[in-house]
Amino acid sequence: MTKNILILPGDGIGPEIVAEARKVLARANELYDLQLAFSEDLLGGSAIDAHGVPLADATLEQARRSDAILMGAVGGPKWDNLERAIRPERGLLKLRSELDLFANLRPAILYPQLAAASTLKPEVVAGLDILIVRELTGGIYFGEPRGIRTLENGEREGFNTYRYAEHEIERIGRNAFEMARQRQGRLCSVDKANVLEATILWREVMDRLAPEYPDVTLSHMYVDNAAMQLVRAPKQFDVVVTGNMFGDILSDAAAMLTGSIGMLPSASLDKNRRGLYEPCHGSAPDIAGQGIANPLATILSGSMMLRYSLDMAAAADRIEQAVSAVLDRGLRTGDIFTDGCRRVSTAEMGDAVAAAL
Amino acid sequence: MTKNILILPGDGIGPEIVAEARKVLARANELYDLQLAFSEDLLGGSAIDAHGVPLADATLEQARRSDAILMGAVGGPKWDNLERAIRPERGLLKLRSELDLFANLRPAILYPQLAAASTLKPEVVAGLDILIVRELTGGIYFGEPRGIRTLENGEREGFNTYRYAEHEIERIGRNAFEMARQRQGRLCSVDKANVLEATILWREVMDRLAPEYPDVTLSHMYVDNAAMQLVRAPKQFDVVVTGNMFGDILSDAAAMLTGSIGMLPSASLDKNRRGLYEPCHGSAPDIAGQGIANPLATILSGSMMLRYSLDMAAAADRIEQAVSAVLDRGLRTGDIFTDGCRRVSTAEMGDAVAAAL
Ligand SMILES: CC(C)[C@H](C(=O)O)[C@@H](O)C(=O)O
Ligand SMILES: CC(C)[C@H](C(=O)O)[C@@H](O)C(=O)O
Repeated sequence: MTKNILILPGDGIGPEIVAEARKVLARANELYDLQLAFSEDLLGGSAIDAHGVPLADATLEQARRSDAILMGAVGGPKWDNLERAIRPERGLLKLRSELDLFANLRPAILYPQLAAASTLKPEVVAGLDILIVRELTGGIYFGEPRGIRTLENGEREGFNTYRYAEHEIERIGRNAFEMARQRQGRLCSVDKANVLEATILWREVMDRLAPEYPDVTLSHMYVDNAAMQLVRAPKQFDVVVTGNMFGDILSDAAAMLTGSIGMLPSASLDKNRRGLYEPCHGSAPDIAGQGIANPLATILSGSMMLRYSLDMAAAADRIEQAVSAVLDRGLRTGDIFTDGCRRVSTAEMGDAVAAAL
Repeated sequence: MTKNILILPGDGIGPEIVAEARKVLARANELYDLQLAFSEDLLGGSAIDAHGVPLADATLEQARRSDAILMGAVGGPKWDNLERAIRPERGLLKLRSELDLFANLRPAILYPQLAAASTLKPEVVAGLDILIVRELTGGIYFGEPRGIRTLENGEREGFNTYRYAEHEIERIGRNAFEMARQRQGRLCSVDKANVLEATILWREVMDRLAPEYPDVTLSHMYVDNAAMQLVRAPKQFDVVVTGNMFGDILSDAAAMLTGSIGMLPSASLDKNRRGLYEPCHGSAPDIAGQGIANPLATILSGSMMLRYSLDMAAAADRIEQAVSAVLDRGLRTGDIFTDGCRRVSTAEMGDAVAAAL
């Protein structure tokens, strides 16, 4: 049965890195007869330029009909002054929300070949392997009411609503407990229950679920402390589960601990594990078009896609092994380059991984 | 003229560390004839135990009449299961709010004597000196409506409101611009303007203020990127200004970069620079009562108090020099201990600083 993959290159370095991921997936398709069929469409700034909106209805329909989506990145200064409703990010947020992609999995893994790239001391990060499970379709990102209004005294006020219903907390909680069960069995739920009522309920629901997962040890941590602990002793974490906003902040900090954010993939899944896959990093408009961006996070997002949404674990393993082999041979894009390695372009990196399959 | 200092030891290690700060201030009082008069009262869990509320009305009145407040820390597991309205943290939040202490200054400084204590590589953090200016009496911490309610379908929902009016953004903005002007002249405003309307207004107001401070360079950064940049290249920052929630998270991360969070003071000021001073760290209930906590952050909070609220810069300088001298001599509490140093207790550290004055 054919699997339809929708590719959304997006903006900035998106098209360059996605081209390499597609190259690798196409090669895997050929070698292992995966029956993948690719189509491409616009998202974000490029969609604004073409259609006036960051996510066209036809693209959303195409996304609904696909078995999985591979994305590059969206956004850039060109579109920064548009009003909120039609900014590039809205396309991505709408896609997440419309497809109910509530579970965002963001691994922060230190690749042994890249240990020197971290700004943290080797003993603090060696072997780091954290999974951040971020709620992606609720919280303050989507809460209503929201906006900017004029108060009676004539000044303006900006406002947003942080909101979580029990079922939203429960489904991301279950997802995180199940992930923890497949890993080291430790789940840390991050909230700000000493200040925010929305997260008091969050903590309560996590505690209620815990007895159903006796093989998982649940702990709670305040978000400010979690930000500190990620810097102080990141290896204390196995799986971290948290809301949309805290997850946005903590997952980026965790990714940066590895020094190789250009290496980290992510998955955003619905309840049936249909999903959107994208690198953890952004669209990096400052280096777009130069052919120097690191395509590995996107290539690894492709392998995550095979594993989680398409049940093609063997092919996913092969891609990950190929990436590892290429790193072993010393090939590096500029962001992960260190002395003694060979500096390669975006396309050379993609070629090397495809060839190593 | 007598200056009335209200001391609020709080919970956990609070009483131990505050006792040492009081010891040092009392010695400075004697030596330099500062005319400080001290009184003490309860806050947080200890106030709950005594009065059933985390901040008694009489304590609040006393705080209003004082020239400055020196605080330890509040909270602990003993009070974790109380309902939100009477938890220890509410006492602190009420004090901040009632006294209009909207400007929270949190320096993250790497002490050269403690360079080895950071988990980051020396070249990344050597000479680190960031000032985080956090808005402290608005945003999601205080926004209404808030609570936990039952929805029509019978499930519960937790909700909070993130809200900033222009005048609130403007006053913290001016404060930050003025701080930047006295430092390296670089101000980075952190928001999530690509998602949250409340922070779109934030960014707009910062941009509007900028021309009034031509000697300060203003930049903007999304909060997720800021969390990353703090790990990647923290020395790019001079002054960071942000809202209450983001400031809570980023200031803790920044403090931890120095590896010596036990060293970092903070000030919370109203528009007349009256203020509350407290260490950046928490009440550390796990080590309370053992006499091993580091009192230096509280001692340095005392010196910050002399400098900012009491116009006693010379005495503040002396205390900071005394702390530096004690560190030079190799005295260390457990949290900052490294081989070759002398491990001392909380009280020994306080004695040493007082003696070095
Ligand atoms: C682009 C932006 C809207 C997005 C987010 O905040 O979720 C990004 O930072 C991410 O983490 O995927
Ligand atoms: C104790 C808590 C309410 C407080 C806060 O979140 O503001 C603390 O974390 C701080 O940063 O001073």
